[in-house]
Amino acid sequence: MTTTRRDFITTAAITGAALVAGDALAKPVAGDNAMPKLLHHVFFWLKNPESKEDLEKLIAGVKSLAAIETVRSIHVGVPASTEKREVVDNSYHVSELLGFDDVAGQDAYQIHPLHKKFVDEHQHLWSKVVVYDALAV
Amino acid sequence: MTTTRRDFITTAAITGAALVAGDALAKPVAGDNAMPKLLHHVFFWLKNPESKEDLEKLIAGVKSLAAIETVRSIHVGVPASTEKREVVDNSYHVSELLGFDDVAGQDAYQIHPLHKKFVDEHQHLWSKVVVYDALAV
Repeated sequence: MTTTRRDFITTAAITGAALVAGDALAKPVAGDNAMPKLLHHVFFWLKNPESKEDLEKLIAGVKSLAAIETVRSIHVGVPASTEKREVVDNSYHVSELLGFDDVAGQDAYQIHPLHKKFVDEHQHLWSKVVVYDALAV
Repeated sequence: MTTTRRDFITTAAITGAALVAGDALAKPVAGDNAMPKLLHHVFFWLKNPESKEDLEKLIAGVKSLAAIETVRSIHVGVPASTEKREVVDNSYHVSELLGFDDVAGQDAYQIHPLHKKFVDEHQHLWSKVVVYDALAV
């Protein structure tokens, strides 16, 4: 199967247009370019939660991971001010959601020099990390 | 400020093309159409993990939430076969990631009749739910 760059971009442009057309069926769903199949969601708890400097350092570090080739999408966040409910865990300090095409993409990321550099330079900042990897069904 | 539908679609089409152009800076990032600012990530643990029927019922139920107007993106998944590491929690059974434009969008979703219907009809299936809401920074 061959796909020219032009075909690829044209298809993506059409998909992009559909995404905002207000049609519920056109929302990004897992497997779209916009929503990769493999999600890697990491939650960090800081060692010094009162340090704004540590928080900013960790956020900047996590954002640098976007440069890794197999990373398809990235969302870096902090707990949202949604309603407090018993099931909501808002005790974490930084959320990092990365999207990959597949498990191989995530495996390649784990051993990538930029990821190893991020861990080496930032792991002193956190006291706890929880990771969830989810494959679209 | 007025934006015509045509302007909106044209902009989206350009964005869509950029997303797959291979430029690291063009990857979907939080706040793009493709990656909403507010993430609502829910993990479910089934009461009867050995029941394929319960799993399928819950997955179908979660997917029905895509029809709610303020839901901008959806990813429904199961634990991925990534490397087993101490920090990875793969004990859950279903992952539901919904994207919203903002906290108000998530709040509207919580009280939406389709969401209430989903909870009413499926809560007997799960023994535990953990929710993380993350706002892009």
